[in-house]
Amino acid sequence: MRASAPAHITGFFAARPDPDPRLAGSVGGGLNLDLSAATTVSRSEETAVLLNGVVSEAPVTRRVVDTLAPSPVRVETELSMPLGSGFGASGAGALSSAYAINGAFGLGLTANAVGEAAHVAEVASGTGLGDVLAQNTGGLVVRLSPGAPGLGVVDRIPVPPLEVELLVRGPLSTKEVLSDAGTMRGVNREGERALRELLKRPTLERFVTLSWEFARRAGLARGWMEDAVEAVESRGGMASMVMLGDAIFALNGGDALAEFGDVIRARVSLGGASLE
Amino acid sequence: MRASAPAHITGFFAARPDPDPRLAGSVGGGLNLDLSAATTVSRSEETAVLLNGVVSEAPVTRRVVDTLAPSPVRVETELSMPLGSGFGASGAGALSSAYAINGAFGLGLTANAVGEAAHVAEVASGTGLGDVLAQNTGGLVVRLSPGAPGLGVVDRIPVPPLEVELLVRGPLSTKEVLSDAGTMRGVNREGERALRELLKRPTLERFVTLSWEFARRAGLARGWMEDAVEAVESRGGMASMVMLGDAIFALNGGDALAEFGDVIRARVSLGGASLE
Repeated sequence: MRASAPAHITGFFAARPDPDPRLAGSVGGGLNLDLSAATTVSRSEETAVLLNGVVSEAPVTRRVVDTLAPSPVRVETELSMPLGSGFGASGAGALSSAYAINGAFGLGLTANAVGEAAHVAEVASGTGLGDVLAQNTGGLVVRLSPGAPGLGVVDRIPVPPLEVELLVRGPLSTKEVLSDAGTMRGVNREGERALRELLKRPTLERFVTLSWEFARRAGLARGWMEDAVEAVESRGGMASMVMLGDAIFALNGGDALAEFGDVIRARVSLGGASLE
Repeated sequence: MRASAPAHITGFFAARPDPDPRLAGSVGGGLNLDLSAATTVSRSEETAVLLNGVVSEAPVTRRVVDTLAPSPVRVETELSMPLGSGFGASGAGALSSAYAINGAFGLGLTANAVGEAAHVAEVASGTGLGDVLAQNTGGLVVRLSPGAPGLGVVDRIPVPPLEVELLVRGPLSTKEVLSDAGTMRGVNREGERALRELLKRPTLERFVTLSWEFARRAGLARGWMEDAVEAVESRGGMASMVMLGDAIFALNGGDALAEFGDVIRARVSLGGASLE
């Protein structure tokens, strides 16, 4: 049984903690991209999780397996997105695994129920707060209230499957940022503000503009990003930071990003996670 | 500006009326199919709606235009689904028009807001109750509570983009069935029952089985459908009636349906309505 889930890059967010991991999460806005996690699940003698062909701890996916699989499984996930750079790889791996396990064992779970298993695993592991909710939806997702799919509330800003340019300098620890109380105060204040502003006029352009305002006001943007965003804007494009990676996403930036490193091109994924 | 919306066939349903058309609708289950309505909207001197190249009254789409478009538009919808046979053509035309108008005028409406305009137009026209909510979602949609996108509540049963066989004998008036009090009492009782049963074990197989039980118990199934479903089942497949058309949908029926007429093949559309 095979399933896939899209990459998800967050433009801005505010954490909304809750003692119940099903209700905990974040609000904000982000784009699903066709850089997918594709997972094949087969029954096996012993449980093993492979990431890109290598046996891995994959703690988030492992939690999903422990929650859902009634007997040992071999879980093989192929990731076509960068790891540890804000692309929601852990959420996509866990979510595609949950769909595939549901199918392989005929568990009879709905999309919201498999999504909940992946969301809870992600929140409990401290690797993410809102990716799974967005990845279960697809498109340019506005997360209006936090929580697992079916509990958290989303809307979408209509966009075509447009091309997004991405430049990744390196990883950034989500856990470290999320656990710094000082940083998070600024993040939450600015994230809630960006959400309110976006809802006044929910368009793609406002999403990118507000994301970049958020990155700077919350003190997350780095020096090279200022230069990169400026370069993209000088070609008539728009850009902002990928939360939370040492990475930039851009629209219509032409070749501007190429001066700063290798550019990855992807398209907005309008569908969310699904069986293949 | 161009947008599309999938066809949607309902397997079972129960009407849930409400004086507020945003809250009125139906609960039930249905499949989105890749037989789409694709709509191109351009500003114009005079408003006109064309269906498959022919100027048409298209009352549902016309209501959407009157609600959303700030100045005259030319709306050209190409339908690749049968008309008046339970494929949600009016909802798909209205929904794709709403997305395209939003894009053409930069209205800054979210997916739920454009969906609401299409849902309200459909309910006010009496042509459907739940198609728009499902078409805005994609996949095998369970409508848990009625209303426009963002107000009605849905979940999905995970399915791959599987092939569905369809046989259409002729149209059936949705309006006529929905306005017959006696018929609707049976429909609503059986539809609510099918929903409760499906939620106990939400799988594709249960969806088809419960749909066919609904069609017979509610007194909507016709004689030829009994024969057609039996023929499909004898080949190891499953089938049920398309609500509300003189039509059948089947899974894995082999050539069984071909004895009853021309078979249309489609795939489940996992994505909902979107800009193209």
